[in-house]
Amino acid sequence: MALDESALIRGLHAANPPPAGVLGIGDDCCVWTPRGPTCLSVDAIAEGRHFTAAADPRLVGRKAAAAALSDLAAMGAVPVGAAVAISCPGRWDAAAVMAGLADELRRHGCPLLGGDTTGADSLVVSVTVWGEGDPEARGRLLHRSDGQAGDLLVVTGPLGGSLRSGRHLTPEPRLAEGRWLARHGFVHALMDLSDGLAADAPKLAEASGCGCLLLPEQVPVHPDVPDLSDTVTAALCDGEDYELLCAIEPAMWPTVQLAWPFAHPLAVVGWLLPEAGAWMEDRHQRRVPLAMRGYEHRDG
Amino acid sequence: MALDESALIRGLHAANPPPAGVLGIGDDCCVWTPRGPTCLSVDAIAEGRHFTAAADPRLVGRKAAAAALSDLAAMGAVPVGAAVAISCPGRWDAAAVMAGLADELRRHGCPLLGGDTTGADSLVVSVTVWGEGDPEARGRLLHRSDGQAGDLLVVTGPLGGSLRSGRHLTPEPRLAEGRWLARHGFVHALMDLSDGLAADAPKLAEASGCGCLLLPEQVPVHPDVPDLSDTVTAALCDGEDYELLCAIEPAMWPTVQLAWPFAHPLAVVGWLLPEAGAWMEDRHQRRVPLAMRGYEHRDG
Repeated sequence: MALDESALIRGLHAANPPPAGVLGIGDDCCVWTPRGPTCLSVDAIAEGRHFTAAADPRLVGRKAAAAALSDLAAMGAVPVGAAVAISCPGRWDAAAVMAGLADELRRHGCPLLGGDTTGADSLVVSVTVWGEGDPEARGRLLHRSDGQAGDLLVVTGPLGGSLRSGRHLTPEPRLAEGRWLARHGFVHALMDLSDGLAADAPKLAEASGCGCLLLPEQVPVHPDVPDLSDTVTAALCDGEDYELLCAIEPAMWPTVQLAWPFAHPLAVVGWLLPEAGAWMEDRHQRRVPLAMRGYEHRDG
Repeated sequence: MALDESALIRGLHAANPPPAGVLGIGDDCCVWTPRGPTCLSVDAIAEGRHFTAAADPRLVGRKAAAAALSDLAAMGAVPVGAAVAISCPGRWDAAAVMAGLADELRRHGCPLLGGDTTGADSLVVSVTVWGEGDPEARGRLLHRSDGQAGDLLVVTGPLGGSLRSGRHLTPEPRLAEGRWLARHGFVHALMDLSDGLAADAPKLAEASGCGCLLLPEQVPVHPDVPDLSDTVTAALCDGEDYELLCAIEPAMWPTVQLAWPFAHPLAVVGWLLPEAGAWMEDRHQRRVPLAMRGYEHRDG
């Protein structure tokens, strides 16, 4: 099937009318009026790296949108808009990829305001999303660099087994959770987990000028991790969980636990340390270097 | 060469410090504070469609940036930021692509604030750019839909021969020209020419609820078009010129011509008509249907 760019764009435009006062698909740019500080992320997924040639094209589109939205969740932001660039060979159903993508954006209240389509030798879906701080958080956006030594490291849900189970195609961007966290001043720093806790927690720590100590025995293991495998390593190192990792003032932990309104309980997985370095506790509560590494997407 | 994502991102971050008050590469999102209505576009170029496997990787990066910036020029906007998603096989020098891209953005005062890199089977470079109206134009952004019947259609430079000559790899986004046009109320509508005047002028006309009449004998032909070819068809139908097309109040034309401060003179290439349809004048000044079509990128 050849990619009829103009028909695809016309269809997108018709299926995605922009909100009032916003110029959507059809001009050289989309146009909107921001209400305050704005955050933006671009996220690309590629055939053979983030999905196989046999993947359902609707799920590919869904995953591309969800992975991008997860970056807005990681700032505690409210989505304002999205624009997609799809580079699509004839063997892929571009319209199905777009439909899966548009559905996922719609589910999270994010209007699709821009698009570009080209032919290509393999499928790449690149999604740009932008958002603003929640008015209920007085527009506050959380950064990964604002953690403080002594903060608890806390995750929003169980980790591991995402790739093995196929769950990686249907990640759930934690937008509501991110907004809740941004409303509370005792939450200092936030990021999303895409490369595994063992790789991502040191990034948050380093950005905050801290070190980190992980508590492997306390990491909640996702039911997708098979019982007979090394479940702790899976929970620490598997990629594409798309849960959030935050740094919280420790004295507020009992309050946070009680107030947290979401189904999955929060779980403490470590601490931020005043000195640089990445550590974990072994079974005897001894501090040892964090030897495990997170997931890295295979390169060509 | 395998793509070392984190090293590439670190290098980008170091080479592209964000402006004061802006959070650039390194967090889940970049963050800036908009001054008013904001416009955004995403533009992807793919190996085998927009450049060959033998192209200079720096020029590929430059072209990706310039094509995206041209969409800001087409709104009369001032660039605020850019984010890039590069999907790159090992046979391409990703760092060189990025260097060409970053240089081109820097040349136009556009900070690179976000990036994502993945492996892929073929090179795709997707660039998101955003901007604001020029304060000297009181923040005005031009749309392609605001042309009026009776307006002159005017281009900012000579057309044709871009692909044949290789000029398509080094397009010049007409940002200064776009800003100048946005400052003048007698300029009603604006777009950039990427698919050829014969394809793009009817788009501006249709978006404005008008038809158009092109004057092929008046279209300025680029020196890149060989003398012995059908020069008029080349100027009307070749793609990737990246000049601007605007709709101007006809009574103001003599004033505009005198005031225009740029090296390439403006040229009248047609009219907007009250009735729908796309027409051209033949050599005997008779109105005939616009039979020629613009350039369409080859699909797989």
